[in-house]
Parts: sequence; C-alpha cells; structure tokens
Amino acid sequence: MAIVTVLGAGMMGSALCVPLADAGHEVRLVGTHLDQEIVRSLQARGYHPKLALELPGAVRPFAVQELGQALAGAHLVGVGVSSAGVRWAGEQLRPHLRPDQRVVMISKGLEWDGDRLWLLPDLLAESWPAALRSVVQPTAVAGPCIAGELARRVETCVVLTGHDLSQLREVRQLLGTSYYHLWLSSDLTGVQVCAALKNAYAMGVGLAAGLHEKAGGLGGGVAMHNYEAAVFAQATLEIQCLATALGGRPTTLVGLAGTGDLNVTCNAGRTSRFGTLLGLGLSPSQAVERMGGSTLECLDILRVLNEALPVLAERGLLRVRKLPLLEHLMLVALHGAGVAMPFAQFFET
Amino acid sequence: MAIVTVLGAGMMGSALCVPLADAGHEVRLVGTHLDQEIVRSLQARGYHPKLALELPGAVRPFAVQELGQALAGAHLVGVGVSSAGVRWAGEQLRPHLRPDQRVVMISKGLEWDGDRLWLLPDLLAESWPAALRSVVQPTAVAGPCIAGELARRVETCVVLTGHDLSQLREVRQLLGTSYYHLWLSSDLTGVQVCAALKNAYAMGVGLAAGLHEKAGGLGGGVAMHNYEAAVFAQATLEIQCLATALGGRPTTLVGLAGTGDLNVTCNAGRTSRFGTLLGLGLSPSQAVERMGGSTLECLDILRVLNEALPVLAERGLLRVRKLPLLEHLMLVALHGAGVAMPFAQFFET
Repeated sequence: MAIVTVLGAGMMGSALCVPLADAGHEVRLVGTHLDQEIVRSLQARGYHPKLALELPGAVRPFAVQELGQALAGAHLVGVGVSSAGVRWAGEQLRPHLRPDQRVVMISKGLEWDGDRLWLLPDLLAESWPAALRSVVQPTAVAGPCIAGELARRVETCVVLTGHDLSQLREVRQLLGTSYYHLWLSSDLTGVQVCAALKNAYAMGVGLAAGLHEKAGGLGGGVAMHNYEAAVFAQATLEIQCLATALGGRPTTLVGLAGTGDLNVTCNAGRTSRFGTLLGLGLSPSQAVERMGGSTLECLDILRVLNEALPVLAERGLLRVRKLPLLEHLMLVALHGAGVAMPFAQFFET
Repeated sequence: MAIVTVLGAGMMGSALCVPLADAGHEVRLVGTHLDQEIVRSLQARGYHPKLALELPGAVRPFAVQELGQALAGAHLVGVGVSSAGVRWAGEQLRPHLRPDQRVVMISKGLEWDGDRLWLLPDLLAESWPAALRSVVQPTAVAGPCIAGELARRVETCVVLTGHDLSQLREVRQLLGTSYYHLWLSSDLTGVQVCAALKNAYAMGVGLAAGLHEKAGGLGGGVAMHNYEAAVFAQATLEIQCLATALGGRPTTLVGLAGTGDLNVTCNAGRTSRFGTLLGLGLSPSQAVERMGGSTLECLDILRVLNEALPVLAERGLLRVRKLPLLEHLMLVALHGAGVAMPFAQFFET
C-alpha cells in the first residue's frame, strides 16, 4: 500500500498507527526526545506503555535521530506532537519533506506569539520555504477521538480539515478503515478552534461533579446534572462565538468537531477530571499535582486565550463580553478564584 | 405574592412547586387521576413518593375533582401532565380559565393526529374558545431540568418560550428564584421540537454503553466514548435539521433547549438507560419490562415521528434522507432491529 511516517509516539500518534497498519500500510513511528522510554519499549517488545497494549507488527519504531531515514519514501507524514512541539516538528520535517508528500496533524491547540493566534497547521509550516508550503498544505484531524479507544478499534468518526480538497481526499484514502471514519471539511479555522477550545470548556463542565461531591452529595442520589448541562449549553454557544470571531464557520460547531468533541472530552479523559478537582475546591496547583504534574491541555489553551483575547478584542475582532463562562474558567484555573458560575450572564443573544 | 396552581403531580409538576414556594407564592398542586396515590401521600404527610422528599409547606395538594376550586383566583396555571394528557388538560382547564390568567407548560413532546404535528401549547389550547386563546397564550418551559434536582434546589437554567413577549416576562417574574434561572425565547417551535426530540436521540447515545457491556468491555478500561460522541454529534445535526424543517430557528439548537437538554438527558434519567438496555441486545419489549413497564418518552416521540415524518416528507416539508440516525433508532426501538449504526450516512452537509 503506502509508507506512512508518524512523528510523535505519545498516545494519539501511536493510536493512529493502528488503523494505518490495519489499512495495510508500512507504518514508521518516530518518537521525539520526550518519547524515549516508549520507543525503547516498542523496540524491545512492541508494547506501548501509555496505551497499555501491543501495537500491530507492521508498526516500526524509530528514535528521533532516525527521522530522515524514517521519512525516506513516505507518502504521508503524521504529526502527533504536543501543541508546544509543533513549531519544533515543522523545523525537523523541513529538510526532509518533498512536494509529493502529504502531511496530517493530530495535535490540537492554538498558539499565541504575542501578536498572532496560530492554527497549528500554519505554525507547522511556518519555517518551510514558500514553494514547499504552497504544495504541501498540512491537513489536520479533529473530532471526538479518545486515543485508547481508537487503538482498540472502537468505531471512531473524525473530521479531516485543510485548504486543499484534493489533498484531503488523498489523506482520507490513506487513513480510513472499517472502524475509523473521516469526513472532510474545508473550514480549517472553525474545526481547529473547536478542537482547541473544547478542553477549556470540558474542564468547566467537569466542575459540577466536584461541587456536588464537595457538598457531600445532595439527598436521593441526585447529582448536579442541571448545572452541568447549563455549562455545557453555554460552552457550545461560546465555542461557536469564538470560532466565528476568529474566521470559522458557525455551522462547524454542530457536528463532530464541535458538539461531538466537547461531548467526548466531558465523558472521558483528564480534562474533565481536572475540572472536578477544581470543583472540589483544590487550588489549580494542587489539582495539577493530583493529576500527576504533567501538562494539561485545558491549562495550555486557557493561558493562550488569557493573553490573546484582550489583544484581539482591542483590535475589534472579538466581543469578549459574550464569553462570561470562559472568563470565569480563566479566573478559576489560572488565578485560583473560587467557582461562582455567572449564570446570570449566560445565554445572551 | 401570587397564587399558582399546577395541574399534574408527577415528578416535574411537583418539582416546579419548590421554586414557586420559595418565591413566596401560594402553590396549589392538583393531581390527575394518575396521581391519586401521590396526592394521598402529600395530604397525609407532605411527602412526594416519586421525588422521595417532602414538598415545602406552602404547597397544598388537591384532587382532580377539586380543580375548579384550585384554579379560583390563580394568577398562573402550570401544566405538568404527560404529553398524552395535554388535550385532556386543556379541556379540564377551559371552563375555569380567565383572560388575566397566565399558563405555563412543562410537558414536553409532540403529538400527531394523522394530519398535523402538534406543539403541546397549541394542543392545550385547541379546545378553548378563540377569544380565550387569543388572550391566554400558553407559554412553555424547556431546557435541561432533571426534576429531582430542581426539587432539591440544584442550580437550574431553562428556557421559557411562547408567542407573547409580555406574557413571557410576567411568567418569568413568577417562576424565577436564586437557583431557578429562566431565559426567554420567541422560537416556540424550535424550542418545543428540541425538547421533544432529545429523548429519542438520548436513547441513541445510550446504546453505546450497552454495546460496550455486551462486548464484555474492551481491554484497558476503555469504553466506547468515541462511538457515543459520534452519535451525539449526529443527534445535534438532526435535531437542528428537524427543528428547522418544522419552522423553528436553526440557532435554537445551540443553547439550553438543544445542546443543553440533550446533554442532561444523556447523563441522567430513564431514556439513556433504556438505550443502554437496547444496546445490550434486549428487545424493545424486554427493555420496557426491565424499566418497570411504564411509559417511556423516547418511545412516544419515536412513534409520533414514525407516523408523521413520511406524511410531512410527502408534503415536501422534510428531506428525510438527512435523518439516518433517527431512522435507525426507529428501526431498533419500534421494530426490534439490531443496532448497526449507519455511520457512513452521517454528517452529510
């Protein structure tokens, strides 16, 4: 079939190798310097310690020093590094990329450089020569996908987005399997903003479970699902508002990239658990410690927005008064404020 | 303050009495012939057996035979009967209603009479004289509200909808408390369609948990959240599509009435548990039996749509090919088909 090289051997990059192997491709998985232990385990016995499973035999592990060799002859290059590593990944790929290669990103997030809010596919290609950038336009996967489920072949539906429809079709052809379904969207901005923001908002939805537990649980086995759902509803409104303000289409919110990804992030994964710890009354640093001290995507995106939104608002790009939930989440998670959900400011039309 | 009479002493009608009592009103709760046991318990010791709590002392229980007496002098009339009882409730109210009384419905659903798909507020007023109908325009509450939570004063945000903005304002003034927040919407159709459909779709989202359990659970503690989220995403698309086709506004989906109510119905309540039983492989009748044999709102709305949609489509009102999830849910829940989610047909734009 084809040769596919994935840079980044964390949960999501490695999970993507499963459908790729099942589709019959030769799969080369390149760990970054953060993945050395994973690569050693894969080389020794094919076992991925974070996914807690053996990857298919067709997946060959490479160390980051072997990147050039791993990219030779590849038809498709996957990028699964953290959002903080995207600029680095672009620089690493640059000397090896050829015009006929395709690129797909599975990193999610936004980056702020003090002046510009970057979509990750644009950031990846920033250091590339203009000639290369014009022919290799990074595509990106978004939508509801828990890595551990994809790696176990749970039915998964995602969106593949990018500027060039024919490249999107080529990439979909290589990625799709009987259980990994891809839909195409040309709304790169809307899809990427939804993908980034859902972590911040899922943290907010997670607060309710902590508040409930903190209150000792109310009588009759009743939880705080009404509170939770009101936050979820406001989250969908604010994600749509921000995605549109940044140049995306309002319709992208309703579907896999928006409502679907927010749903899965509330129901599974670390973000929502972090929100629950904050709801319980832990300080942000206590909650980070309780989560094992590693990077939390919800804090990353909240920090980015905390810096970027005032600047964008000043330029007239955002009516920030319409984002009362996001503002409260920044106060709680970045500045240690107590939770006092500003319901009265919600649902402004 | 005011006198408020609520007809229907089930979970939701009774729960609404709690904020009403907290707002200082005289509250009269009238049981229907289905609520006799509840009314007896309330009269004997103020205890509501389904909510499993004591209602506030300001709530006075009445039997259905005392409806006229209970309505005398009421400023606001709440209607909390099941959707099947709405026509009956309208007929019971008719002889007692006065032009200066306001009406608020908390029943959710749609009814089909073979020719017309009825919104419940319109159905309630069907038998009223035109003069009365023109001055008393029933308002309706929708959005994410689990009755047991509202009755325990969990922070709850809902939408109040109707045609007449000044009546909406009056009703909101009577209903709102520090924990029960109401927003106004003039999109009666969109709000009511969202409120009715969420039960059908939450059943669909619930299937995944059953499929997962049936498969013995996959390794590594992994669930089927990706599957679940894809169904959730398609549900939001189809609810928006149907609400719009029936005359509602597409924007109503994003907020309390749409994404909020779907979220809460997936996370709490009987509908989603019923879906899980179907996902486990139980037949619809086995699943109904397991649920205690009582009425399930998801089956009610699926039956209504199963009859109504082909007729509406024939009239050119609906592009039904855009509702593959709903069609599959009707096959599974009404006709006993096995679950085979038609992902390939989803997310058509």
